[in-house]
Amino acid sequence: MTAELVGPLSATVAEGVRRRIDRLLADFIDDHRLPVTEPGVEEGFGLLREFVVDGGKRIRPLLCYWGWRGAGGDAEGLPAVTAGAAVELYHAGLLIHDDIMDASDLRRGRPTLHRRLGASTAILLGVLVQAWADELMAQATGDPHVRALFNRLRAEVISGQYLDILAEPGEERARLIVRYKTAKYTVERPLQIGGALAGAAPDLLAAYSRFGLPLGEAFQLRDDVLGVFGDTAVTGKPVLDDLREGKQTVLIAHTLEAATPPQRAHLRRWLGDQDLTEERAAELRQIIVDTGALTRVEAAIAALLEQSLAGLAACPIAPDAREALAHFADRLTCRAS
Amino acid sequence: MTAELVGPLSATVAEGVRRRIDRLLADFIDDHRLPVTEPGVEEGFGLLREFVVDGGKRIRPLLCYWGWRGAGGDAEGLPAVTAGAAVELYHAGLLIHDDIMDASDLRRGRPTLHRRLGASTAILLGVLVQAWADELMAQATGDPHVRALFNRLRAEVISGQYLDILAEPGEERARLIVRYKTAKYTVERPLQIGGALAGAAPDLLAAYSRFGLPLGEAFQLRDDVLGVFGDTAVTGKPVLDDLREGKQTVLIAHTLEAATPPQRAHLRRWLGDQDLTEERAAELRQIIVDTGALTRVEAAIAALLEQSLAGLAACPIAPDAREALAHFADRLTCRAS
Repeated sequence: MTAELVGPLSATVAEGVRRRIDRLLADFIDDHRLPVTEPGVEEGFGLLREFVVDGGKRIRPLLCYWGWRGAGGDAEGLPAVTAGAAVELYHAGLLIHDDIMDASDLRRGRPTLHRRLGASTAILLGVLVQAWADELMAQATGDPHVRALFNRLRAEVISGQYLDILAEPGEERARLIVRYKTAKYTVERPLQIGGALAGAAPDLLAAYSRFGLPLGEAFQLRDDVLGVFGDTAVTGKPVLDDLREGKQTVLIAHTLEAATPPQRAHLRRWLGDQDLTEERAAELRQIIVDTGALTRVEAAIAALLEQSLAGLAACPIAPDAREALAHFADRLTCRAS
Repeated sequence: MTAELVGPLSATVAEGVRRRIDRLLADFIDDHRLPVTEPGVEEGFGLLREFVVDGGKRIRPLLCYWGWRGAGGDAEGLPAVTAGAAVELYHAGLLIHDDIMDASDLRRGRPTLHRRLGASTAILLGVLVQAWADELMAQATGDPHVRALFNRLRAEVISGQYLDILAEPGEERARLIVRYKTAKYTVERPLQIGGALAGAAPDLLAAYSRFGLPLGEAFQLRDDVLGVFGDTAVTGKPVLDDLREGKQTVLIAHTLEAATPPQRAHLRRWLGDQDLTEERAAELRQIIVDTGALTRVEAAIAALLEQSLAGLAACPIAPDAREALAHFADRLTCRAS
């Protein structure tokens, strides 16, 4: 099924959208230099620019673009690209703050901003790009419906992060976090923002939810698997981070649920240990495999992808948008992405 | 001079505006409960609500209101009150983050949010109210000129905070920080936002700058003095905080400049000491007085207030707005405020 979904057209379009997002963000930032000239501030500004412009898979802008196209928007899609860039700016601000909260050293293969500039400066720069996001969204549109979706997106992702910080264990909680932090924030709302910009009817926006929510959930499950079994060269972050952080993912919830008492004791002892060694991590990975949790999550990813693609098939949209979104869904949930 | 400026009319109006801001913010927040119901999140939300609704002198909203009135806006001034509430929400978000950066324990006489909820949650809640600020500003107006002023306000205050973090000593740097963190952010831009909402001509907005910038500077100098010599019962924050933090204020710059070598050594040793005792603080205060720095700052406050009132006298605005702004200027810079 996979091969036929990977159309060269949608890949070319994606490449074009990514280039436009990079250019638009670079121009916007260059246009928003801070009013003070001073080496310390200039240095931070330069690192911020690099972080925003030269990084990220641009998942949300691409979904925004195809949400627009699916609703009959033109191929150029300037409003959707601009709104997508705004969402991406907001996301950059969240990532800067996330890395502080998680005390992460690397992001996109480079030292995190707070490691280079200190936590206070990184908090400020995160806040700055979030204000920019707002400004850029206002450039994209004054449509109150789109603004309402953007407002909801922001409240939802913060809710998901809040639940995440509370760190209650269990599958139910883990799935709720996935819903807010990823399914709604990364997939459903960007699609709907693009759709609403092109004047999509409520029916289409609801269909986008039926496609987007399971896809977003599958994407997060894939990300959780990669966070434990992935390759730093691909993910850009050390593969020990999630285990050291003791992230309460669905994968970990399944593992704990199916673990034998000695396995569970071992997990409880080492998950979340800041100084976890590679050897201990290998033991934890083995338990995750032995309990069947990995297989269970892989099966869930496959089922969610199927559900998502069924939702997509029922979307009343043009064939090229459908093909592109199917391709995209496949990429988001496949093993190597 | 002071007594005649304190008109009962403007005080009554101020009280009314404050009540409307509180009500508007309370309604807005109640209308923006997070989409997840869970005790931990509800608790944080409640503390956030309390922090935003029940606190602050509402300086920026009042300036916004009088900026509106000065430009011929009606007495009710709904757009100005709404925009003022938006600026206040943004400010609340900044304060939450500020307290994390400064590791402050108290704000407005209560434990800071990060002390009660942890730094990660406080970062999130700060980000949340900043997004709300944006939403509320969009409710107030879609006028691109006003939005541009709000965007500038945000970039300016962040620039000021950035300079502050870099902590370069000296009077010149301290004054630059005051300009961005207070003069523009707290006084000039709120006045101009109110004015622009009422369709003020560029001349009036420029006149607001001539009134607002020296007033804002004087206000910050007063705040710096209160930060060292003030009373916790009045300021709501421990009076040792600024000394313990080693804040590089104009007051401290003057002190270091005029200090004898032993005094300077004493200052360098104890300013910024996290465990500074009340006895040591008293010694530092004595040095600040003995060097003449306090007198010099008091004289600067008086001169700036005069300059500000001269700017106000030249403002082409209605007498009631002028009287109210003069009253306000006096309150902002007087010893006990």
